[in-house]
Amino acid sequence: MMTVKLVIVGSGAGGVMAAVEARKNDKDADIVMLTKEKHFTYSPCAMPFLIGGEIKKEDDIIVFNEKFFSSMNIKLVREVEVKSINTAEKLVEYEDKEKNKKKEGYDRLILATGSYAFIPPIEGLDKEKFFTLKNLDGCEGIISESNRILKERSGAGALIVGGGLIGLEGAFALKKKGFNVLVVEASPKILPAMLDREMTEKVKEYIEGQGIRVMTGSLLKRVEKGRALIAANQGDINEDYDMLLIAAGTRPDTKLARDAGIKVDRGIVVDGRMRTSVEDVYACGDCAEFRGVLGEVTPMIGTFAFRSGKTAGANAAGGEASLDIALNTAITKLGGMMVASVGATGEAAEKGGINAVSSSFTSSSRSEYYPGGTPMTVRLVCTKEGLLLGAQIIGFEEVLGRINLMALAIQNRISIKDISNLENAYAPPLSPIDEPLSVAAGLCLKRLSLQLK
Amino acid sequence: MMTVKLVIVGSGAGGVMAAVEARKNDKDADIVMLTKEKHFTYSPCAMPFLIGGEIKKEDDIIVFNEKFFSSMNIKLVREVEVKSINTAEKLVEYEDKEKNKKKEGYDRLILATGSYAFIPPIEGLDKEKFFTLKNLDGCEGIISESNRILKERSGAGALIVGGGLIGLEGAFALKKKGFNVLVVEASPKILPAMLDREMTEKVKEYIEGQGIRVMTGSLLKRVEKGRALIAANQGDINEDYDMLLIAAGTRPDTKLARDAGIKVDRGIVVDGRMRTSVEDVYACGDCAEFRGVLGEVTPMIGTFAFRSGKTAGANAAGGEASLDIALNTAITKLGGMMVASVGATGEAAEKGGINAVSSSFTSSSRSEYYPGGTPMTVRLVCTKEGLLLGAQIIGFEEVLGRINLMALAIQNRISIKDISNLENAYAPPLSPIDEPLSVAAGLCLKRLSLQLK
Repeated sequence: MMTVKLVIVGSGAGGVMAAVEARKNDKDADIVMLTKEKHFTYSPCAMPFLIGGEIKKEDDIIVFNEKFFSSMNIKLVREVEVKSINTAEKLVEYEDKEKNKKKEGYDRLILATGSYAFIPPIEGLDKEKFFTLKNLDGCEGIISESNRILKERSGAGALIVGGGLIGLEGAFALKKKGFNVLVVEASPKILPAMLDREMTEKVKEYIEGQGIRVMTGSLLKRVEKGRALIAANQGDINEDYDMLLIAAGTRPDTKLARDAGIKVDRGIVVDGRMRTSVEDVYACGDCAEFRGVLGEVTPMIGTFAFRSGKTAGANAAGGEASLDIALNTAITKLGGMMVASVGATGEAAEKGGINAVSSSFTSSSRSEYYPGGTPMTVRLVCTKEGLLLGAQIIGFEEVLGRINLMALAIQNRISIKDISNLENAYAPPLSPIDEPLSVAAGLCLKRLSLQLK
Repeated sequence: MMTVKLVIVGSGAGGVMAAVEARKNDKDADIVMLTKEKHFTYSPCAMPFLIGGEIKKEDDIIVFNEKFFSSMNIKLVREVEVKSINTAEKLVEYEDKEKNKKKEGYDRLILATGSYAFIPPIEGLDKEKFFTLKNLDGCEGIISESNRILKERSGAGALIVGGGLIGLEGAFALKKKGFNVLVVEASPKILPAMLDREMTEKVKEYIEGQGIRVMTGSLLKRVEKGRALIAANQGDINEDYDMLLIAAGTRPDTKLARDAGIKVDRGIVVDGRMRTSVEDVYACGDCAEFRGVLGEVTPMIGTFAFRSGKTAGANAAGGEASLDIALNTAITKLGGMMVASVGATGEAAEKGGINAVSSSFTSSSRSEYYPGGTPMTVRLVCTKEGLLLGAQIIGFEEVLGRINLMALAIQNRISIKDISNLENAYAPPLSPIDEPLSVAAGLCLKRLSLQLK
């Protein structure tokens, strides 16, 4: 039998999991990974905590190191730029650090090219120093620059463009370091992809209570020498800053695929086995577009990279694996508050033309009489037929398992009725006797039955 | 239309939820509750925390007070003893505190007679002072007696018979008060109904690390004037104690039903609508027997009382509600450790003649590189066909949502494969990227595929 040659472009979670799974499926495959990164594979999700100081050393977040790659017999080629793919001849052309042109032939190719930070059009930005939190180099830059600034002046100003997950995690990290933080978000709500308006307001209130300023519906129009002009709700305002972080979202990196004639929409289009439109070429992770609850989505989160990477790797190495749907199950910890979401928001469903019903419910995380309980709000979104479309949870304990519970329900098409019938566990220090998710499901049922009348 | 007369025997969670749900379904029903309790409805699950001092006042655990009953127009008759039921004439006969004989006619009757503490045969016990943690009177007795003892001598000895949920929660409460605690459990493992041997060993180790002595496979044979004779693994030993707590399990209180000719097995036999064998008589809560994962069970836990009570109340008041299965989803907090279980253990499945497969997996509760992670062990039990039968979880954070996730999976017949495919949420401070339950499900799958080969 001939040895299979597998080339993987990208060494993030998607690429590495593809390599690992390929190795599991084929002990003899010749696996080559090409990456522009100078670092071994690290966890990008950990970067805000490296800035905030919860994690002490950069080395700690290297999750797959040199030893790992050699033990798995995966050839990792770092600091190279892949220039083009010739799918007819099955060749990848790339340049090394010294601009030497090189080629690598493949039997199967996996594109795990990731995503890049979207930089919105801001007047004067090209002349100003700014940071993104997209890779470890950027993270290192933020840490050294912020140390320099704060040494000069504590309470210096950090301006963050973007109130999504990364922007807010960055805001808490910089606040913790000692900055005076202002977050400017263009859309009318923070975490717009994760939460409906009513939920997002609770998060905003908490964040502001933690001493972080948040301006929604506001646009950074111009920057010049540490002074920003912001078009806010109440009119234009000027804001001085010492540090500028752009976290206005990410976009799938699809250039290579597009140039090679591989089908690309917002991301590289893949099927359930992570196959692209071209034979023997797979894609996974942030660069891929996949079916979501309301149509095609570009998840660009770690868990999808992990899962789609495993799927691509298995299939590319002759195995069998597939994904059904991407739910964008996500959670973040902002100070003490946990914010989680899965599937579609009510507002997204409405925008998608779906006649959905949503219900929220707030209770204590513990029995009312047990001390130390904290408020927990859950919100469920379901179809007219009572099928769960999405869930949102805000709380200070026991949020993770609950959002996973909702993910399992959506993945397995479990109805709102079944969720309301959940036989939950109960102990006064750990939960109310009536599970908040079941109560919210019951409220959805009630609304549905009223609609039917 | 005639007013329906509904009589409920018992004012615990089952009885009250039945009354509440009956009221929801029938605004005009004449609802009478007869109870031997002198207290309004309290949370028995809260009693260990009243002893331990986490909850300060007895009043705090009264979850349905006088005002509640009057606002719901439910007539609560306390401190009465129901003597008999005449199902032919639809009459309940009872005695009040002054032994006056009384009668109450009914259109529908709900038996929520609860359970009683099982007292094992121990020589000399009848001459000794001992306590049970079955009701608020017993709890008050424990608190005043332990205050008295500890005032005289700190580090006094508390001997607890039974290493189940109540015994262990009682052990932590008495330890917290200042007792030197010894738990004696007859079966070879603690929490025998909840955990397989391998899991139970981890809990035992933790409990012992907290300074509580635990003797499994040991029997309290004799007590005399504060001295106990225990038949232990290593032979008979003598142990002095100042306080004796019997927590050797509970039994459904079925006497009334049995005497009235209602079908009783280990508990009062009910169908999915909580109907007994006699028309217009329902049963719910601790006194009822219901179908479980491996056959009939007597759940005797708060959540079943809550759910079966609601079901009985709805049906008795002309509504429609039913339960499918009782999973015995349960969780407890012992010191900092959370122990949870749902469905059948591997050992119970084996005993039931089922060819089950079990897998355990231990990981950190957070990303490996994120500080403050704690060990979490999960164990799944599934059928040869890959259907989940049960799950057990031990950890120090985020256990509740995970056991509920497993409950939803069993209730909705979700396969091990689907659990391994769960799209879990991930954030370094809150979870590993690979959900432990999914990893354990993958291990089960691997075992199953090896069995097939």
